[in-house]
Amino acid sequence: MFNKILFSLFLTFVLFNVQAQNDDDALKIKEIYNHTLTQGDCYQWLYDMTTQIGGRLAGSEGADRSVLFTKTILDTLGADKVWLQECEVPHWDRGIPELVRIVGGKTLNSTALGGTIGTGEAGLTANVIELQGLDDLEVLGEEKIKGKIVFYNRPMDPTQIRTFNAYGGAVDQRVFGASRASKYGAVAAIVRSMTLKQDDNPHTGVSIYEDGAEQIPSLAISTNDANYLSKMLKNQEVQLYIRNTSKNLAPKTSHSVIAEIKGTDFPDEIILVGGHLDSWDIGSGAHDDGAGCVHAMQVFQTLKAIGYKPKRTLRCVLFMNEENGLKGGLAYAEESNKNNEFHLAAIESDAGGFTPRGFSCDAQDSIFADYFKKLTSWSDLLEPYGLSLVKGGSGADINPLKSQNGLLIGFRPDSQRYFDYHHTRIDNIDAVNKRELELGAASITSLVYLIDKYGLK
Amino acid sequence: MFNKILFSLFLTFVLFNVQAQNDDDALKIKEIYNHTLTQGDCYQWLYDMTTQIGGRLAGSEGADRSVLFTKTILDTLGADKVWLQECEVPHWDRGIPELVRIVGGKTLNSTALGGTIGTGEAGLTANVIELQGLDDLEVLGEEKIKGKIVFYNRPMDPTQIRTFNAYGGAVDQRVFGASRASKYGAVAAIVRSMTLKQDDNPHTGVSIYEDGAEQIPSLAISTNDANYLSKMLKNQEVQLYIRNTSKNLAPKTSHSVIAEIKGTDFPDEIILVGGHLDSWDIGSGAHDDGAGCVHAMQVFQTLKAIGYKPKRTLRCVLFMNEENGLKGGLAYAEESNKNNEFHLAAIESDAGGFTPRGFSCDAQDSIFADYFKKLTSWSDLLEPYGLSLVKGGSGADINPLKSQNGLLIGFRPDSQRYFDYHHTRIDNIDAVNKRELELGAASITSLVYLIDKYGLK
Repeated sequence: MFNKILFSLFLTFVLFNVQAQNDDDALKIKEIYNHTLTQGDCYQWLYDMTTQIGGRLAGSEGADRSVLFTKTILDTLGADKVWLQECEVPHWDRGIPELVRIVGGKTLNSTALGGTIGTGEAGLTANVIELQGLDDLEVLGEEKIKGKIVFYNRPMDPTQIRTFNAYGGAVDQRVFGASRASKYGAVAAIVRSMTLKQDDNPHTGVSIYEDGAEQIPSLAISTNDANYLSKMLKNQEVQLYIRNTSKNLAPKTSHSVIAEIKGTDFPDEIILVGGHLDSWDIGSGAHDDGAGCVHAMQVFQTLKAIGYKPKRTLRCVLFMNEENGLKGGLAYAEESNKNNEFHLAAIESDAGGFTPRGFSCDAQDSIFADYFKKLTSWSDLLEPYGLSLVKGGSGADINPLKSQNGLLIGFRPDSQRYFDYHHTRIDNIDAVNKRELELGAASITSLVYLIDKYGLK
Repeated sequence: MFNKILFSLFLTFVLFNVQAQNDDDALKIKEIYNHTLTQGDCYQWLYDMTTQIGGRLAGSEGADRSVLFTKTILDTLGADKVWLQECEVPHWDRGIPELVRIVGGKTLNSTALGGTIGTGEAGLTANVIELQGLDDLEVLGEEKIKGKIVFYNRPMDPTQIRTFNAYGGAVDQRVFGASRASKYGAVAAIVRSMTLKQDDNPHTGVSIYEDGAEQIPSLAISTNDANYLSKMLKNQEVQLYIRNTSKNLAPKTSHSVIAEIKGTDFPDEIILVGGHLDSWDIGSGAHDDGAGCVHAMQVFQTLKAIGYKPKRTLRCVLFMNEENGLKGGLAYAEESNKNNEFHLAAIESDAGGFTPRGFSCDAQDSIFADYFKKLTSWSDLLEPYGLSLVKGGSGADINPLKSQNGLLIGFRPDSQRYFDYHHTRIDNIDAVNKRELELGAASITSLVYLIDKYGLK
């Protein structure tokens, strides 16, 4: 009986402490949100970066300026150390404004794809053939493709609820379309823009020439114009005139920007928050990925403002060159491995500044379940903010850290509007809602706080 | 032993059927989403209603036109019956464009509040006194208020995650500000606009004169101008000139629009989906509540398109006069009660056309738990679409049905941007994202499908 009473008292004590701890955490998370929503600077930083600098393609002047711009801010956010990490990045230049015109007809809204070569100033003219995907190359064969401009027109699937899945199901046309078509004798490739929206904005993005493939020009046209062209092709042959003067120049030295707060108790366990600093050259990369950069910077500002001293080492990393080479992410992982570092967790925000829905988690198979169990033990704290935890991919820049056996986390905001803006001239500050951006930063900060306080074991 | 085997077989059979049923439902819900996202007309309807008709204040020509516009569409959606239900609505007229000017200074962005009287064409001039809420009236007393213009400036609380809670915590200033201030001798009231955004758009909305209170003019100014005025008041006395010629005219006869599909098995159990047809006069009420109307209409279109025959009676109800009188909702409940009807469930969409987050459920205390248990048994089917179920308010128009002991449900989309547009001149079609609108309609249709198929017992 005595033992029972003791045990009961013990249980009461434990439960009381668990509850008290939980209440403390709930209060701390509330404090994080309150600060971010009332005194956060992330929106102003993004406003300044997108309006004063604009596009930040790796190797461009805008990218260089964004390195200095963010370093200057990070210098004020209470980090122990802020530094630049070198990486060698591709340097692609768009050239003069591109032109895609139906011979004898209208001009289509177009954009050269990142990495493409140009047609030369004279341009090229050829007949168009429409395909629904890379597989159609084999079906049609060289006979039908040789000498033509290949037009990939498979739309993103609108029935996918998460738009990233629709993107993943269509983007092979943009990335590999030109390279594969050249093997069948195509003279150029154009692709339907990667978006679910019907409008006039062409979407750029990377196009890759695979080893050994002949390089041919590669451009995207808007969804409205893709529909127009497709309709026209049902009734007649269509000749297109394409002109762009894009070219790949010699690689350049660029930098990722890193800020660090050394942990008080477990300095060798690193928690990384990051986004990528580079963007495409059209538009000003407000959602992709200015939002991710200011999210990560806001984590530091908020933790400083509420006086939280991290037990573990926190790093804010703004990666260079995610869009067309990943050189910043690769250099970071290489350097980290060389120094025998351990990233307990890395969180990347690279899905826009929309209302948070949660986090997507990834780790080596052997350890994922344990990490995920720990994370979901905090669900009650995150759920009031609309945050759920799922298994899934994290972020391109942090993925090279997977071999360190930590947990990789992708911030997941609402995805419905992301591809309305992605890689376009309209991915600007007016597409970003201040509150939605701030909520994202607060969500990430809250997760950083929990991981830092409790670890992941 | 034999019994055990039999029991085991029985269990397998039951589980198999439960699983099969679940798979059927998952497929049906997928079909609902697929149709809505690829062939739904809700966005086009909203486009037409907001661009061709515009504002739809009860008693206005726009409201009358919207009744005919939606009835004409509902006539094509496979309903057994479409009819108009009469209600007598207040008829408020804004008059000539309102003017709020700092004497010797700038003009503030303002809007007369719905139901307010006018100043007369000559306008009125008086000193301003700033208050943080209705309670300040008592604190300051008649001596300080008499003869002045009362300026309510308590902002919505930005730290509320759900913006409707922030609205609920501030809107008493708009609704009762003028009426209460008149008791202390104020000559007019102006209120900070009900929004979390800092901008130049004034937000209108209802202002109510309580019985016996002297009627004084009641207007809102933009948040930017509220900040400007407040700052000015810290250093000096400020005189305002206000002019508006608003007036309350004789009530008019208007209509709610109702479409019905008679249930095959349980015709006496009604499931209602609805929104409200009226809007404020500035802007075109795209989110508030054109979105709710086209959501409800889309439910009928989708169920028809996928060939679903409801077991229970479905009604699409587009209520008139939610904004300033609720006369449509009250008339509907009165008529329904007179006919001894039973609404098993009523779902209102009146929180905008944003990405769905779930549903908020309400019923009489004695029966809520049973209903909610049944609803949450479908959580696995709803969760893949980002839909969660919570206890909470439903909708103003359906609330009068609560006494019928059915379940009341409010559709809950993401709330972050709602009060950027609510009751403003910018609540127009360009503030609505097509996919987000369609996802809302599909979410509501899916819930209607489940309630219709399984009931709520």
